[in-house]
Amino acid sequence: MSARVLIVDDLFPNVKLLETKLALEYFDVVAAMNGPDALAICEKGLCDIVLLDVMMPGMDGFEVCRRIKNNPLTTHLPVVIVTALDQPSDRLKGLDAGADDFLTKPIDDTALFSRVRSLVRLKAMTDELRSRAIASRDIGLGDPLAAAAAEGGLGGKVLIVESRRSAAERMAASLGAHHTVTIEPDPQRALLLAPEGGYDVVLVSLDIEGGDGLRLCSQIRSLQRTRSVAIIMIAEDHDRDRVVRGLEFGVHDYLMRPVDRNELVARVRTQLRRKRYAEALRGAVQASMELAVTDGLTGLHNRRYLDTHLGALFTDAAARQRPLAALILDIDRFKAINDTFGHEAGDEVLRAFADRLRLHTRGIDVVARYGGEEVVIVLPEADLADAQSIAERIRERVEEAPFMLRDEGRTIAVTVSIGVAALMPDDTVPGDILKRADLALYRAKHSGRNRVELQAA
Amino acid sequence: MSARVLIVDDLFPNVKLLETKLALEYFDVVAAMNGPDALAICEKGLCDIVLLDVMMPGMDGFEVCRRIKNNPLTTHLPVVIVTALDQPSDRLKGLDAGADDFLTKPIDDTALFSRVRSLVRLKAMTDELRSRAIASRDIGLGDPLAAAAAEGGLGGKVLIVESRRSAAERMAASLGAHHTVTIEPDPQRALLLAPEGGYDVVLVSLDIEGGDGLRLCSQIRSLQRTRSVAIIMIAEDHDRDRVVRGLEFGVHDYLMRPVDRNELVARVRTQLRRKRYAEALRGAVQASMELAVTDGLTGLHNRRYLDTHLGALFTDAAARQRPLAALILDIDRFKAINDTFGHEAGDEVLRAFADRLRLHTRGIDVVARYGGEEVVIVLPEADLADAQSIAERIRERVEEAPFMLRDEGRTIAVTVSIGVAALMPDDTVPGDILKRADLALYRAKHSGRNRVELQAA
Ligand SMILES: [Mg+2]
Ligand SMILES: [Mg+2]
Repeated sequence: MSARVLIVDDLFPNVKLLETKLALEYFDVVAAMNGPDALAICEKGLCDIVLLDVMMPGMDGFEVCRRIKNNPLTTHLPVVIVTALDQPSDRLKGLDAGADDFLTKPIDDTALFSRVRSLVRLKAMTDELRSRAIASRDIGLGDPLAAAAAEGGLGGKVLIVESRRSAAERMAASLGAHHTVTIEPDPQRALLLAPEGGYDVVLVSLDIEGGDGLRLCSQIRSLQRTRSVAIIMIAEDHDRDRVVRGLEFGVHDYLMRPVDRNELVARVRTQLRRKRYAEALRGAVQASMELAVTDGLTGLHNRRYLDTHLGALFTDAAARQRPLAALILDIDRFKAINDTFGHEAGDEVLRAFADRLRLHTRGIDVVARYGGEEVVIVLPEADLADAQSIAERIRERVEEAPFMLRDEGRTIAVTVSIGVAALMPDDTVPGDILKRADLALYRAKHSGRNRVELQAA
Repeated sequence: MSARVLIVDDLFPNVKLLETKLALEYFDVVAAMNGPDALAICEKGLCDIVLLDVMMPGMDGFEVCRRIKNNPLTTHLPVVIVTALDQPSDRLKGLDAGADDFLTKPIDDTALFSRVRSLVRLKAMTDELRSRAIASRDIGLGDPLAAAAAEGGLGGKVLIVESRRSAAERMAASLGAHHTVTIEPDPQRALLLAPEGGYDVVLVSLDIEGGDGLRLCSQIRSLQRTRSVAIIMIAEDHDRDRVVRGLEFGVHDYLMRPVDRNELVARVRTQLRRKRYAEALRGAVQASMELAVTDGLTGLHNRRYLDTHLGALFTDAAARQRPLAALILDIDRFKAINDTFGHEAGDEVLRAFADRLRLHTRGIDVVARYGGEEVVIVLPEADLADAQSIAERIRERVEEAPFMLRDEGRTIAVTVSIGVAALMPDDTVPGDILKRADLALYRAKHSGRNRVELQAA
């Protein structure tokens, strides 16, 4: 994957050395010689990954990393800390700051390049989602980036696939304070368990007994239902080639034995944050699309949704010769409610009315605000008689208890008139049913309101 | 990238051989021994890429390929034809059927694996977009997959980066019938031209004079503005290693010299289809999200949009001490129009009213249907006097020509009452402006309608 790599180092020869190596691997390189410049480049969206020195005058690398990861605009950028510091405490400090990896100089070039490629590829998977989420924000539908970036990376479901019981239990103990942990010693059973268990992170021992740990990783990665699960390999020093192989086909991270418990905790948290970041973006885009078919005031479906789905239900019922019915409901004297109690009270009545309808309809019914104080309910598999009894029940439920206005502690008695119609053999368009229901509603209104009327043809 | 590879071949030993090789590379393998079985597996979403034999009893590989590519549910799957057929005419037939590549046995394993990996990675980039587009379809917002799959791959903008004039002109002549073609002999200038020109496909000669063709590919691939451009390398036989390198970092396809003109045409068309497929999905998701803030009847913004954007404009104007005004418009005696001419005529009047408002407002104004026959217009950088003259102009434009009802050839005279208010120093919430505008509208209605009234405080 070609990508723009930002090198951050206060020493010019260090920048040059890395730059030359990366250019030979066909990466594009940008450089910054201090923290503030690096942050500016990241915020402007001018890089895909950051290689970060620690010891720099002014802002050190740990602080730069923390700021990148805490800023909603830059939290998606992978950060690899590349430093001469080699103490476990430094390493942990980097990972705790949110770094995706921590490499100690002298750098093994193969390891560095394979790491950069793998992180850049994983980022690319989320880039499209991030663009759509930004578009949703720009339209004015909330700020999903800020919400996604706030994710803390705790409370996940973790599966440890490890045949050595003591090693598995040590890891489980380290992770147990923050996550729900399951241990599975058998790789075959793990492959069955992974899609069932709803795991966020799976740790796989590469030298597991009874199977090939690396193959298990590749299977989890390619199964439809586990594709988005974060995978971390646990490897011995002699397994470095297989680690590189795993990173190539999409494994997210790895830990070398002996596993440092703090490093384990930090890496699991980073993977959980990354996974949930993508989920939050996906959820935001999905929610934005669903708003398009949702009535803003009542949360019922809107007319756009009704038009599409009534058409589909009509065609389906006609083709399969199954019954289909529709109700049009209109709150009685709604204008008087608005005029007497004000628009806000009217809105509250509409919301409460919608709540009652949700309570007294089935999951397969389409309940949509048709405009003003009118609601249409489409009833699949219901004939005229079924629809009449459903309508009558709704009418009673509306009448039997007055509506409470929350803000004022006041109640308003509300009634509803309902027109009912069912699919007829001669109907050619979905609107035919609605027209008859509308005529029935007209009769209900003109024969005293708070009534259900049917229109047979 | 780990992935599920579907092997389609009528001979069991062929299946086994490929399966063993692919499993060693950590791919998951599914197999089918005839066309119909293969199509069923593809439709069920059980594979990520198809390796396809040609000579099979019943349905041959060309037909299988055509069906995969013409089915909206499977068109996104890359297909590599793997066959003993070695005539240029076979090769062309495969590419014309929509195959992403055509490899002749005996297969060079390195070439096959690098091709499969590259195609799987490119597919993965679009998978998330495809899922969102499917979600949009499931909500009931049209069928973007069908529209995207119908793309023919013609009429693109193609840039040929090639220093050998005769070779460039030959390629341009082959492509000229279907696309708009530009030739650029200099790689440095090509890098400047690529983001400016809005190209769909860039062909890059790897042995171009004056630069490194492969580096140009990687730069186009990593530049933000050219990331989605399709890139095809033109290579000599001795360049095979660099071709593999290019595929690894994200180049989409390649052609070996001497360039076969029909193969060139077929590969450019395939890349154009792939690019436009992604664009169509992206556009569908974007459109779905925009529907969430659009009023279905008039195409104006809806109340949801108004609520978000009035808030932002209010905060901004208050902070920068800039003027801000709002109009509330209400069509006079709209109920009478509905009662006299029917609901559909009323809807048409609303649409025509919206058209006139669009004509007489600025791009920065927010024009939103507020409910029923009410529209709110928010005017940034406008004080009370500016807003009054804009309102007066709108009132005149509505009054001066009656509204035409298209279906009936009939016209209806319409007038509008408008309440105007502007931001005051004491305003604390955006609703304060709207409340005053609403009071002004009330006065306009009660002093004879077809009037503009102001509310100073
Ligand atoms: Mg330093
Ligand atoms: Mg055969």
